[in-house]
Amino acid sequence: MRQPSDEQAGVTTRRGRNKERARKRVYASALTLFRRQGYAQTSVAQIAEHADIARGSFFNYFPRKDALICAWMKERTTALTRRLGSCLRCGMPVAESLGTCMSVLGALNEEDLDLSMAMLTGWVQAGRPLGREPHLDAVFAEIVECGRARGEIHATLDPGQVGELLRDLYIGVLCRWAGRPPSARHSLGADLQEALDLLLHGIATPGGPHRGRRRGFV
Amino acid sequence: MRQPSDEQAGVTTRRGRNKERARKRVYASALTLFRRQGYAQTSVAQIAEHADIARGSFFNYFPRKDALICAWMKERTTALTRRLGSCLRCGMPVAESLGTCMSVLGALNEEDLDLSMAMLTGWVQAGRPLGREPHLDAVFAEIVECGRARGEIHATLDPGQVGELLRDLYIGVLCRWAGRPPSARHSLGADLQEALDLLLHGIATPGGPHRGRRRGFV
Repeated sequence: MRQPSDEQAGVTTRRGRNKERARKRVYASALTLFRRQGYAQTSVAQIAEHADIARGSFFNYFPRKDALICAWMKERTTALTRRLGSCLRCGMPVAESLGTCMSVLGALNEEDLDLSMAMLTGWVQAGRPLGREPHLDAVFAEIVECGRARGEIHATLDPGQVGELLRDLYIGVLCRWAGRPPSARHSLGADLQEALDLLLHGIATPGGPHRGRRRGFV
Repeated sequence: MRQPSDEQAGVTTRRGRNKERARKRVYASALTLFRRQGYAQTSVAQIAEHADIARGSFFNYFPRKDALICAWMKERTTALTRRLGSCLRCGMPVAESLGTCMSVLGALNEEDLDLSMAMLTGWVQAGRPLGREPHLDAVFAEIVECGRARGEIHATLDPGQVGELLRDLYIGVLCRWAGRPPSARHSLGADLQEALDLLLHGIATPGGPHRGRRRGFV
């Protein structure tokens, strides 16, 4: 059956549509196996077997196993921006928009916990914390930019750099949360909100001997 | 020759001293090879060969290859606290102490860049961002605790949680810095100081519509 999403993706030939269907099957099989048995414990051969394709055909759809992590992260960033859509449109105060962002990120992880933990471990072990993905800094930076335009964020700050710092906090809090035994985990969204509050309002009292230090870094 | 450090470590027998000497030789060989050819590219067999011991004997000194990363991180944390000693003793303002901390961390990485980058990559690929090491949060927390006692840090904040957040920022900034091509890297210490300034003073203007939001999270 032709899917509206195929047409959106510009897949107009039957061959292209068949390839797209098989790619989706491989992707869905991978997620099922990662969720069930972990990322490192799942081989390309198992994914191919589950998707009912030859092992070598896997590479027609994904260049390496860790390309599945990229695809999943892109999908999650899309889910985040879709859920955030109304905040971004309605000009919600920046603290609330960023708070909603953290709460959606918390929910996205907790809703599909086994898969999220498998993907996080795979992402780390593939050395990805040294790369740029997930591109959440751009999502944060857009909100910060709007807030700055409304005078809610210090005018001297660079939204891009603040976005990167918010991404660092998200990843740091998520890794610490994931590293705890499940029984010792509270709400991830609440942990993220606490970290956000500290960055929004700062940890230093205004009257301390550090008063007069340069604010921001532009 | 008996070393004063052996006695400090409680190594009092000749057999114990010989074992300690061999352990140090294995450790030094590992660092030489990691620095020269990277962490993942260096095998236990190569380390043993360089240290002139049998391959199997490696495991008398270190249970796994990644135990070398732990040993190195512990050594670096010790170097950090030694260099920070005078700041902590003299009651320097908290912003300055934390700034010195970031500047020492920047210098420690830049002074032995090839080894630091090899160890960072090894640490990431061993899945360690999901663990608690390096225990820098305790170093940060101690400084924050002193600052809070002097009224320079908001009284409602938990120094332990602020310490963890400062560790998140350090690791995030370091990973982004390491991920850039060497020609695009500025001073790591300056990048860390910028991140610290944001967390100290906050990104939100005091008069925004978020005024009155709960400060801190105790």
